[in-house]
Amino acid sequence: MQTALSLAKRGLGQTWPNPTVGCLIVRDGQPVGRGWTQPGGRPHAETQALARAGDLASGATAVVTLEPCVHHGATPPCVDALLSAGVRRVVIAIEDPDPRVAGRGIAALSAAGVEVSVGLLAAPAKRLNHGFILRITARRPMFTLKVASTLDGRIATGSGESRWITGDEARARAHWLRASHDAVLIGSETAVQDDPDLTCRLPGLAPRSPLRIVADGRRRVLSASRLMQTAATYPTWVLSGTDSDSRANWPLLPALLPPGVTLIGVDRDAGGQLDPVSIAHTLADRGLTRVLIEGGGVLAASFLKAGLVDRLAWFHAPKIIGSGGRPAIADAKVERLIDAHQFRRDSVHQVGCDIVETYDRLEQ
Amino acid sequence: MQTALSLAKRGLGQTWPNPTVGCLIVRDGQPVGRGWTQPGGRPHAETQALARAGDLASGATAVVTLEPCVHHGATPPCVDALLSAGVRRVVIAIEDPDPRVAGRGIAALSAAGVEVSVGLLAAPAKRLNHGFILRITARRPMFTLKVASTLDGRIATGSGESRWITGDEARARAHWLRASHDAVLIGSETAVQDDPDLTCRLPGLAPRSPLRIVADGRRRVLSASRLMQTAATYPTWVLSGTDSDSRANWPLLPALLPPGVTLIGVDRDAGGQLDPVSIAHTLADRGLTRVLIEGGGVLAASFLKAGLVDRLAWFHAPKIIGSGGRPAIADAKVERLIDAHQFRRDSVHQVGCDIVETYDRLEQ
Repeated sequence: MQTALSLAKRGLGQTWPNPTVGCLIVRDGQPVGRGWTQPGGRPHAETQALARAGDLASGATAVVTLEPCVHHGATPPCVDALLSAGVRRVVIAIEDPDPRVAGRGIAALSAAGVEVSVGLLAAPAKRLNHGFILRITARRPMFTLKVASTLDGRIATGSGESRWITGDEARARAHWLRASHDAVLIGSETAVQDDPDLTCRLPGLAPRSPLRIVADGRRRVLSASRLMQTAATYPTWVLSGTDSDSRANWPLLPALLPPGVTLIGVDRDAGGQLDPVSIAHTLADRGLTRVLIEGGGVLAASFLKAGLVDRLAWFHAPKIIGSGGRPAIADAKVERLIDAHQFRRDSVHQVGCDIVETYDRLEQ
Repeated sequence: MQTALSLAKRGLGQTWPNPTVGCLIVRDGQPVGRGWTQPGGRPHAETQALARAGDLASGATAVVTLEPCVHHGATPPCVDALLSAGVRRVVIAIEDPDPRVAGRGIAALSAAGVEVSVGLLAAPAKRLNHGFILRITARRPMFTLKVASTLDGRIATGSGESRWITGDEARARAHWLRASHDAVLIGSETAVQDDPDLTCRLPGLAPRSPLRIVADGRRRVLSASRLMQTAATYPTWVLSGTDSDSRANWPLLPALLPPGVTLIGVDRDAGGQLDPVSIAHTLADRGLTRVLIEGGGVLAASFLKAGLVDRLAWFHAPKIIGSGGRPAIADAKVERLIDAHQFRRDSVHQVGCDIVETYDRLEQ
């Protein structure tokens, strides 16, 4: 199952709206076929692994990180594929929360006389597909907040200089974070100030660049920006209010939108900002499971306040700027220490001269 | 020498104005005597180790982390003690920068026919006595800045709540930092807001509590404060301007000073703040070698700007407060990223739910 989870990990950021699944066919203790969910979410891991195993699948054991599907979607059900291949035993990490499956894959396999066991390495399997599970059960993607700051939490000097706070190795790690998420979300202030690409520029991994999303409640993103100019290659969504008044003020009329740009309306909160809960629902409805929030401080604070930051990836550079610099997180309305946003450490790594710490949200 | 350095480390924070030294007497490959500088700076490591070795010192090798002294101070010269004990060979990590020694100890040993070698593990030996070396060569102590902040660099909420940002394990580690420094320095804002003890409250280590120093340019520290009330047990220095005008406004007249409190005048800078360079000279002149700066953000920023922060001990708690909270470092006049205060990572440790990172100043 550890191997199957490693296979599944390869699909992170590539399989939305589907989960990423790994499958290993084992015969007489030897692996005879491996598969994982392919980009776009299909073919599924099981059919890939069965194809590689060929005739050896007959009488073998299939180890799979998520319950095989039983419904006819864009692909035939994996349960049927496993049965017709003659698999004798199926080991499953977790049930599929998708209501079209939800235990029925397990039931169908058992009914056909296949020996089924569920629960092996369930915790890491749940963690791996946390985004997919949230999309199905909570109508929202998983959000990872990425911050690259000085030790004192500054992301730019007072004059706005931010390139680069962290070193090459840390930035490479951040590009890998992009590749393992479905989409990158930034606020309009970051879009205007930094004019970023938000692509994955690791050698050979450009095709794994995520969807780019700008939360642009004030409709400030320029058509001359890099995001707009490169949208034909790297699709870009621009979120703004559904309110018709501000739509009329939108400087980029839909007819003039660059190719690859999609305008999406979301609700505003009482303060007139784009509502993070509405953003979350909208992105889930469009199939996103893993979204990386890359800045700036106002967007990060609004998602923190809404309780939507599931994971943190915080890069600390060995530098100090002081309070004249720009804060990583804007005002988050924390009056008492007990109300601070709390996390649980997952990992600490030294990357070049910097450190990256990852955290999971601590349920309060 | 590694053993001798470990012995020397025991004296950190206890031996000022003297360096902390470790000494091992080795005969036929076996250690026959160990010693380290005793609290207050004497007896010296060599006499301690020789006393334990007794007659076995004759013909043995002495391994010592710093050149033995040759001058008559409060104790007789260690060179004489080594010679009369009949030591045949002396291995020394580094020369003593003190102008009363400065190679003359080595010369005296050689002249007497003792085999002397210098330079083994010189780098860690220099690091260990960095504070003493700075006191002698730069007329200032070594300053370690300790910060306990959230991930986003906040040391309190907007309402001033700061107890506690970090957990028990991290605070215990911070108390050990106090024990290994000669003195703890805070600003008056921290003194007034937090009314801290600044003692070492680790079990059995209260006698290792450092001298407490308050930089109190505005003379705000109250006689009712814990620092003043406990000064008879834990000596406390209060720094303020040498300017006579403000001295007249000092609310605690010298005649009423609680026992254990010493008033010390230092120069002000152009802005009327206590000048960190003048503080550094004053503390060195009074013998301090290792000073821990514990807050707040204004004091930390002034020492950073003056280039006086040699080491950092930064505790990061897995929490976020946002820009409404108090910044760890006040405005440090960093306009361009290249002017940010830069450090080199020394260590990273996970302490309970927090992380502590230590850094050395990067010379620019």
